[in-house]
Amino acid sequence: MSNSFGNLFKLTTFGESHGPAIGGIIDGCPAGIELDFESIQYELDRRRPGQSKITTQRNEADQVDFLSGIFEGKTTGTSIGFQIKNTNQKSKDYSHNTDVYRPSHADYTYDKKYGLRDHRGGGRSSARETANWIVGGAVAKQVLKNIQINAFTSSVGEIFIDKPYQKLDFSKIESNIVRCPDESIARKMIENIEQIKKQGDTVGGTVTCVVQNVPIGLGEPVFDKLHAQLGKAMLSINAVKGFEFGSGFCGAKMKGSEHNDLFNTNGSTKTNLSGGIQGGISNGMDIYFRVAFKPVATLLQKQQTIDSKGNIVEMQGKGRHDPCVVPRAVPIVEALSAMVLADFLLQYKARH
Amino acid sequence: MSNSFGNLFKLTTFGESHGPAIGGIIDGCPAGIELDFESIQYELDRRRPGQSKITTQRNEADQVDFLSGIFEGKTTGTSIGFQIKNTNQKSKDYSHNTDVYRPSHADYTYDKKYGLRDHRGGGRSSARETANWIVGGAVAKQVLKNIQINAFTSSVGEIFIDKPYQKLDFSKIESNIVRCPDESIARKMIENIEQIKKQGDTVGGTVTCVVQNVPIGLGEPVFDKLHAQLGKAMLSINAVKGFEFGSGFCGAKMKGSEHNDLFNTNGSTKTNLSGGIQGGISNGMDIYFRVAFKPVATLLQKQQTIDSKGNIVEMQGKGRHDPCVVPRAVPIVEALSAMVLADFLLQYKARH
Amino acid sequence: MSNSFGNLFKLTTFGESHGPAIGGIIDGCPAGIELDFESIQYELDRRRPGQSKITTQRNEADQVDFLSGIFEGKTTGTSIGFQIKNTNQKSKDYSHNTDVYRPSHADYTYDKKYGLRDHRGGGRSSARETANWIVGGAVAKQVLKNIQINAFTSSVGEIFIDKPYQKLDFSKIESNIVRCPDESIARKMIENIEQIKKQGDTVGGTVTCVVQNVPIGLGEPVFDKLHAQLGKAMLSINAVKGFEFGSGFCGAKMKGSEHNDLFNTNGSTKTNLSGGIQGGISNGMDIYFRVAFKPVATLLQKQQTIDSKGNIVEMQGKGRHDPCVVPRAVPIVEALSAMVLADFLLQYKARH
Amino acid sequence: MSNSFGNLFKLTTFGESHGPAIGGIIDGCPAGIELDFESIQYELDRRRPGQSKITTQRNEADQVDFLSGIFEGKTTGTSIGFQIKNTNQKSKDYSHNTDVYRPSHADYTYDKKYGLRDHRGGGRSSARETANWIVGGAVAKQVLKNIQINAFTSSVGEIFIDKPYQKLDFSKIESNIVRCPDESIARKMIENIEQIKKQGDTVGGTVTCVVQNVPIGLGEPVFDKLHAQLGKAMLSINAVKGFEFGSGFCGAKMKGSEHNDLFNTNGSTKTNLSGGIQGGISNGMDIYFRVAFKPVATLLQKQQTIDSKGNIVEMQGKGRHDPCVVPRAVPIVEALSAMVLADFLLQYKARH
Repeated sequence: MSNSFGNLFKLTTFGESHGPAIGGIIDGCPAGIELDFESIQYELDRRRPGQSKITTQRNEADQVDFLSGIFEGKTTGTSIGFQIKNTNQKSKDYSHNTDVYRPSHADYTYDKKYGLRDHRGGGRSSARETANWIVGGAVAKQVLKNIQINAFTSSVGEIFIDKPYQKLDFSKIESNIVRCPDESIARKMIENIEQIKKQGDTVGGTVTCVVQNVPIGLGEPVFDKLHAQLGKAMLSINAVKGFEFGSGFCGAKMKGSEHNDLFNTNGSTKTNLSGGIQGGISNGMDIYFRVAFKPVATLLQKQQTIDSKGNIVEMQGKGRHDPCVVPRAVPIVEALSAMVLADFLLQYKARH
Repeated sequence: MSNSFGNLFKLTTFGESHGPAIGGIIDGCPAGIELDFESIQYELDRRRPGQSKITTQRNEADQVDFLSGIFEGKTTGTSIGFQIKNTNQKSKDYSHNTDVYRPSHADYTYDKKYGLRDHRGGGRSSARETANWIVGGAVAKQVLKNIQINAFTSSVGEIFIDKPYQKLDFSKIESNIVRCPDESIARKMIENIEQIKKQGDTVGGTVTCVVQNVPIGLGEPVFDKLHAQLGKAMLSINAVKGFEFGSGFCGAKMKGSEHNDLFNTNGSTKTNLSGGIQGGISNGMDIYFRVAFKPVATLLQKQQTIDSKGNIVEMQGKGRHDPCVVPRAVPIVEALSAMVLADFLLQYKARH
Repeated sequence: MSNSFGNLFKLTTFGESHGPAIGGIIDGCPAGIELDFESIQYELDRRRPGQSKITTQRNEADQVDFLSGIFEGKTTGTSIGFQIKNTNQKSKDYSHNTDVYRPSHADYTYDKKYGLRDHRGGGRSSARETANWIVGGAVAKQVLKNIQINAFTSSVGEIFIDKPYQKLDFSKIESNIVRCPDESIARKMIENIEQIKKQGDTVGGTVTCVVQNVPIGLGEPVFDKLHAQLGKAMLSINAVKGFEFGSGFCGAKMKGSEHNDLFNTNGSTKTNLSGGIQGGISNGMDIYFRVAFKPVATLLQKQQTIDSKGNIVEMQGKGRHDPCVVPRAVPIVEALSAMVLADFLLQYKARH
Repeated sequence: MSNSFGNLFKLTTFGESHGPAIGGIIDGCPAGIELDFESIQYELDRRRPGQSKITTQRNEADQVDFLSGIFEGKTTGTSIGFQIKNTNQKSKDYSHNTDVYRPSHADYTYDKKYGLRDHRGGGRSSARETANWIVGGAVAKQVLKNIQINAFTSSVGEIFIDKPYQKLDFSKIESNIVRCPDESIARKMIENIEQIKKQGDTVGGTVTCVVQNVPIGLGEPVFDKLHAQLGKAMLSINAVKGFEFGSGFCGAKMKGSEHNDLFNTNGSTKTNLSGGIQGGISNGMDIYFRVAFKPVATLLQKQQTIDSKGNIVEMQGKGRHDPCVVPRAVPIVEALSAMVLADFLLQYKARH
């Protein structure tokens, strides 16, 4: 349960940011896929810390070692074990946190739930875990083949893209460090993040994801609806506070006569407020959704907090934290989307 | 998978709106609980069609029959089978839909996925299924005992409650037919729905849910975070387009220095933008979240659509549909919340 | 968990022998299968009590009602709910057992585990549950199409078939009430059971099952080996004490040079001590296995036992019990085999 | 599924014998257990190759590295990742097998199922995988605390212990290399294995396992019976052909009046043909079962077989294989038993 995701294409993971390694096991990947290892590493590089001036300066190579399930470059159908060594652990950075509950982190809840916790860098609650997801997602993308998944930063704080995604050029996403395909908005976002970083503060944002070329029929009715599983995936990412697809929260303000997607004669729809999913099942139109990230909780400002005995203490984050998590979250959103879709693709095939 | 929800407290369901019955099996309910059957029926009555002038006039008694797992009024620890007979099926109402794909319904996707479909009332995609969830949730509530779950209508179309939930009196929720605890807002909502109904149109809305008195430590890290499972549950409800908890999408606009919840010395927090969950685990503060519902797709207006051969046809919904789904969704949101919490409560106990 | 079996083809069940009904939900059955309802009822009739002089004289029609998942005679791909009403409950028969722990039944363990129990006819531990499995298996058989599953009584007490299964004519299985295809052995078995019945005693036996025409490649490596899942299925049947496949316990006495199955050039093997499975995966040869059933615990003789307070009491089974469970177990063994194979067939298709 | 075992205490594994490492993830281990690492290594040493003259002379240190889930020597409640490096791979040994299907191995079925296979040492079908299980089991034993699990070699070929287990001194199991607590029988077994080894042949055998001090109430009714899950676990071990518990296959020959276990006034039973389990639930008496292992398929004799094109070829196993798998299987049987019991212990606690 807790550390596994997926049914037929399943990722199970382990690892704390300050142990020797993190890693995982991909179970259920079909056999005979010639893996493109460069694209897997490319995705890890998109997520890795230290990649730009607006991300944490912590620097980790994040190189994945595959340990099983691959023979002569192809998947064998058996479980794929992998690990990513933690090369830059610096436990000392966290020695001052030993007994302190950082505000809006998971220190307090882990301690109360388990009766003890690995206080180094958040232990298991560290977002370092998401590097494992990148690996799972990068393999899943190779199962999906023709399905295109493009996520991008759609807002940072109060700055947001004010065009529909159809007017964006996804090939521009990687052209700037904030991963926003609208370049003039991107510049504003970067400036904003830099400014906030100087204040020792952090800022939230949203990621939008568009999935194209999805076959009709993915998703299972009732409790494994395609969007429900996508939502669960996104809500598993650290710092996520909300998920909406298609018309989303705006849809709640609309009338049925405005909201209904009328059909073309070929089964496509004239509008797509449904977001490519009807009754939990893909209808062949673009799937798109938006994910809200709160601001990073670690500030380079003084904050009052408590220690495990309930004493009030003062703390201040040190050096290497992201002022805004969103640019590095973009590949994570894609990775989880890929895993969800690969899982449903296999489920679809099972019954056809 | 598809028709089951939960791990240790698990509901598996079946049923189409136009078959002889719907029903389900609750697996994993602890033994020795003296069930309050009246409260179960009460919850069903809150969901049932025909309950007020702003809901569908279809009239079903929705009486649940328990078939197993209960002996002399107490749960025995074995699986609880139940069914709700469909007493008011009127298949004739749907005979005109035999071969038509209704816009923004699941007709098209079911037909393409399965190669055939039960066209009567949406078949398995009918929201009648949610009556099963009410039963599961009403039993789950009796597992949870002291945990309070209060959902209410927080907006209808453009009309919304503009107070924080702390200023609302939950005992007023059932005092009006739209289930909005702010009575002046409630009146506006009801008027709005009546007006839209007259136009043969429908309108969306949001439900807010507040869960109080939750023990610290519920939820599992990484992939079974408490809010991720709540989100998946809510996104399983028909017509839901979005989910946010705590600060939600607003949180994405904030700075860390505004968003962090500082601790009191007893471990509670001065603010609660986290929404009662940190790192996927309950922290003892109120859990609150908001769910967006699109407008009902069936209109009492003419719409153009297609049939299965791609011919353009004109259709118009008949008689008995909800102009706004939100008032009847309130108990459904509560029911799924209760199931999620009961599941995590059992998981918590497993390891303590 | 507890009340579900299977992954992609999954049966979840409920019911006690003395409640209003038993039933279940089949989740994951592919769409578009035109169900042969007569063959489903036929399998139920093979299991039902009162079918012959060597089974219990309790008489239940065991008619299954399908409640969902079928439209115009075909499966729709959605969950199939069904129930079998308990028409002949006679709770009075069991009133004398209210507080008595019957030897070698589950009365004591249920009471200790759950703190209470439905004492009527064994409650959930009743073998009446297996009628649900027959339904699941009869549907699974229709998913499997060309795969043949033949189970038969291979021994009763000390009387056993002394030929390899290849020398038996499976079309004779239903020609006698003990379901043994060797007719002279069948007569001895029947005589033996009748004699034992007269003594108010019971006797054990074995069922052998042969599965033919299985495609190569079913079964998953490591923890979902085909024979491991078959074994789990069989060990779920009431009164089963052992499972062996291929060479079984005899294989433990052999040398490798005797036991290895040498290949023919077409990939088939000259011998089949492997029992059609290598490394957990079907190899296209016949799968065969044997299941051991202990004698029924309910005797029509006086036995000393205890009540829930630890008092010694005397008890004697009344009227309607099987002197030997094996003849009625034959269709149950087939049903569970069919469900296991259908599940693995879907899993196979998922990744091809 | 395929590479995971357990529900609440779950092991997921990866690895081929000739990759860089094997390993796994233990999910669901309760927090706060002070792990005894020496006892984990001790169990690995009991399984490791090269430990005596009657096991394979392949020599691997089998040292486990824990990568996560443990902090300052205690489990943290998060997933425990571990790996065991393959230090003695010698792929050359297997270069002659590239295209040959070894009789009664999984070469043929893997190739047909997946379309390709890692031919080095059996790939994923290698019994090297069981080293992972030892780690999972050794951790599970520390969850179980007072429950004692003792497995031993009860037969090798035609040589068997002819006493009930109650007359054996389990402290003698490790006093000889065949792991048989009856020392005179042990000597005969060792002689027998040595003789067979000289012939380049192999021999089967059985392992008996006795679990003592089990609390009443473990095991779930219907489909997760304690013995059904034990059976599935044992049938997952390479080379296993059969499983029986309590009276087992002998029970099938008995009468009910002989087989029933009559109660003492304290709820224990005078006999224990039930094998400590009634209705799938532990009754507090000793649980005991027997597992049949076929002879190892790799012979140091010439055998005819085929290659992937269907050509007949001659092959002969080289050097380093076990003449009898049973002595090294003893700790594996214990490990899987421990995992099954730990899982049911957590499930029990979930509902109390």
